[in-house]
Amino acid sequence: MDTELKGVINDIQQMYRDDVEKSKIVFKTSSRLGGRFRSDVTIRNHALTIDEPESIGGSDLGPSPAEVILAALGSCQEITYRAYATALGISLDSVSVELEGDIDFRGFFAVDETIRPGFEAIRARVKIESSAPAAELEKLREVVNSHCPVLDILSNPVPVSLDFVVGDED
Amino acid sequence: MDTELKGVINDIQQMYRDDVEKSKIVFKTSSRLGGRFRSDVTIRNHALTIDEPESIGGSDLGPSPAEVILAALGSCQEITYRAYATALGISLDSVSVELEGDIDFRGFFAVDETIRPGFEAIRARVKIESSAPAAELEKLREVVNSHCPVLDILSNPVPVSLDFVVGDED
Repeated sequence: MDTELKGVINDIQQMYRDDVEKSKIVFKTSSRLGGRFRSDVTIRNHALTIDEPESIGGSDLGPSPAEVILAALGSCQEITYRAYATALGISLDSVSVELEGDIDFRGFFAVDETIRPGFEAIRARVKIESSAPAAELEKLREVVNSHCPVLDILSNPVPVSLDFVVGDED
Repeated sequence: MDTELKGVINDIQQMYRDDVEKSKIVFKTSSRLGGRFRSDVTIRNHALTIDEPESIGGSDLGPSPAEVILAALGSCQEITYRAYATALGISLDSVSVELEGDIDFRGFFAVDETIRPGFEAIRARVKIESSAPAAELEKLREVVNSHCPVLDILSNPVPVSLDFVVGDED
């Protein structure tokens, strides 16, 4: 058991109970289109290249936005399993996720305006290795799925406001 | 104007009108937790490392899942601007996006079960450079926001099914 991580989680929970303002986090990214469909993204000290496959006119220098969404869900499930297994003292040897997401491109390409441009469905296969009893693992699964941020973001609407600026002004 | 890309888009639209089955795309990713919170993701020929900052027990070897969601939205907006500007013959010199997303970590850390674990709000600042008339750019903005896959994915619920497998079986 990772007692150091368990301590980190306990300390964070106590910090948020003591001072609500510390729990309110603002995440930030910035990106710019370079080339045709290549987007160069900056996330704190990390760089990420997102692109489209050659089949739709991109250069395939990185995963596409839709693929990046699936990647975020898989990793968020895995991280949430690790965090809650540690917090609850449940053995967890490994966790991996395989994902599939369905998009009907008639939506994005405006061939049929009744079809949504985003995912119509996502299927995940979450595989864990653990010696814990089945009842504990079922409890773990339930608590993970009710606290996984990206699962919530995909399953429920997020209010998005878009400011649109033309020209050189900042 | 990128007449080659305009031709690619026209050909794709015609292909989907001719054969509906070709428009139905299945995106796939797979990932596995390594280390504490580090997730190693495989997306076709691309690799992506997702991690958590050291402040919550990670090693900060990559962006966090929530940051990756913002990255996907920014790049998807940019790609959709490029695609529709090209398809509609509207001049577009550059497009960049700055994003902020609010998460109250009392949700993820189960300090307050009434708080959602995901984004409570996302704010985007989309900046374009273009010599096109304002009316054309307003039309472009509207068509982009009604066809951007990731904006749809975040704004509207996506059905997610999660299979849970314990042990070594495939």
